[in-house]
Amino acid sequence: MQSPSIPLEPEMLARFADELADVTDAMAMSYFRKPLDVERKADQSPVTLADRAIEAKMRERIAQKFPAHGILGEEHENTRLESAHIWVLDPIDGTKSFISGMPTFGTLIACLSDGAPELGVISIPPTGERWMGLHDKPTTLNGTPCHTSGRTRLADATLYTTTPDTFDAAGSGKFEALSGQVGMRRFGGDCYAYGLLASGHVDLVFEMGLHPYDYMALVPVIEGAGGVITDWQGGPLGLHSDGHVIAAASAALHQEALAALS
Amino acid sequence: MQSPSIPLEPEMLARFADELADVTDAMAMSYFRKPLDVERKADQSPVTLADRAIEAKMRERIAQKFPAHGILGEEHENTRLESAHIWVLDPIDGTKSFISGMPTFGTLIACLSDGAPELGVISIPPTGERWMGLHDKPTTLNGTPCHTSGRTRLADATLYTTTPDTFDAAGSGKFEALSGQVGMRRFGGDCYAYGLLASGHVDLVFEMGLHPYDYMALVPVIEGAGGVITDWQGGPLGLHSDGHVIAAASAALHQEALAALS
Repeated sequence: MQSPSIPLEPEMLARFADELADVTDAMAMSYFRKPLDVERKADQSPVTLADRAIEAKMRERIAQKFPAHGILGEEHENTRLESAHIWVLDPIDGTKSFISGMPTFGTLIACLSDGAPELGVISIPPTGERWMGLHDKPTTLNGTPCHTSGRTRLADATLYTTTPDTFDAAGSGKFEALSGQVGMRRFGGDCYAYGLLASGHVDLVFEMGLHPYDYMALVPVIEGAGGVITDWQGGPLGLHSDGHVIAAASAALHQEALAALS
Repeated sequence: MQSPSIPLEPEMLARFADELADVTDAMAMSYFRKPLDVERKADQSPVTLADRAIEAKMRERIAQKFPAHGILGEEHENTRLESAHIWVLDPIDGTKSFISGMPTFGTLIACLSDGAPELGVISIPPTGERWMGLHDKPTTLNGTPCHTSGRTRLADATLYTTTPDTFDAAGSGKFEALSGQVGMRRFGGDCYAYGLLASGHVDLVFEMGLHPYDYMALVPVIEGAGGVITDWQGGPLGLHSDGHVIAAASAALHQEALAALS
């Protein structure tokens, strides 16, 4: 049974998430470019001591502050997912970048109320950039409001995807159909590409097979910056989405992109 | 007729290149993430006012200090290529990253004597990292000697290439053959990937169709860090190479990679 949803005060939520990200940024940088054993998970994705230690620290802090809240993270067991409030955590998004010294990995923090994201943080430890999104409020980059480019035409758009290697044949076909119509396509970026979208430098991000901990934090960041982020059918992203994500700098661009996919 | 080669004093060269990179880093950052008109060159690659202005400044400084030296740059006319000493310049390597806000672009500076690179600099303005290579001397990152990983086996290696979009069908076949044997392959990075190789975070970089201004500066950086950088046949890189480049963390890894290509 779901416990009753007690509204969370957005400023308090933001302050807590900011302090949490200060802690995790420092931890991530203490491991970055240092020797680390890399293990492979069941899906062959890499994981290190850093991923596990950072998530454990986040869980500890959240449990102290919000003992009734649920937690869904990449590296440890889910807890209290029946709670009205759930934290969704990715300690290191872009572990492959992290372990190859590339400073474009990030930490993702989301807080959901009744399944909908109230708060999302994209924190990039090596560059010190931190995007914060709160439902129905302007997204900020290091405290200053930021906006998407507002671009509306595919022909003018810059598209990112982290790697073509995550697409299956059908996904690859859709990626070629979409990216064949854009002004420029680029690879790499992980969650950083979504931050750059929220700040107006990138116009589209298209990815396949993400997990809730990869995308839930992105939703308030993109929406609060004037962008649109959905699944490939244009439906809202939730804990049970298929993980095929498209983010666009404007509603018009999002519509053009969906049309290119169909 | 080639003018006689007057030996250049390495410390003097390094000091000059360092000061030059200080100037170009500041210029690059003054344009980064600001509105810029993007034009397309004949080969459809993008160019901005920033690329042109930075190279013009480099040429002005070099002409003041070394009026007899030649200059080969990406954005302006070649001058005095009959000189024994030639500067090879890429004001912004990774213009596509630069114009999409991605902080992994760099400035490349090489100085050749009788066709062989004496000095190479990879400077990454947004992160403040600068790799400097001098022929027969240890490569440094921000003044501190750095080394490749020394990894010797493809199965353990992390491979980068900037984008699969530069490969033709034959190149793509070679890329698949090589990357099918490595531990991890990643996209993105531009010249940054070679810096990360010189510092031991990346083990292989494989690219097709580069120009001399894309690769000449990389040679002293990679070699002085203990790595090997050649064309796809294992031949040395010079002004007239075909621009198909492979860089490896060790001679053994380079041999394994060449074997995978053939």
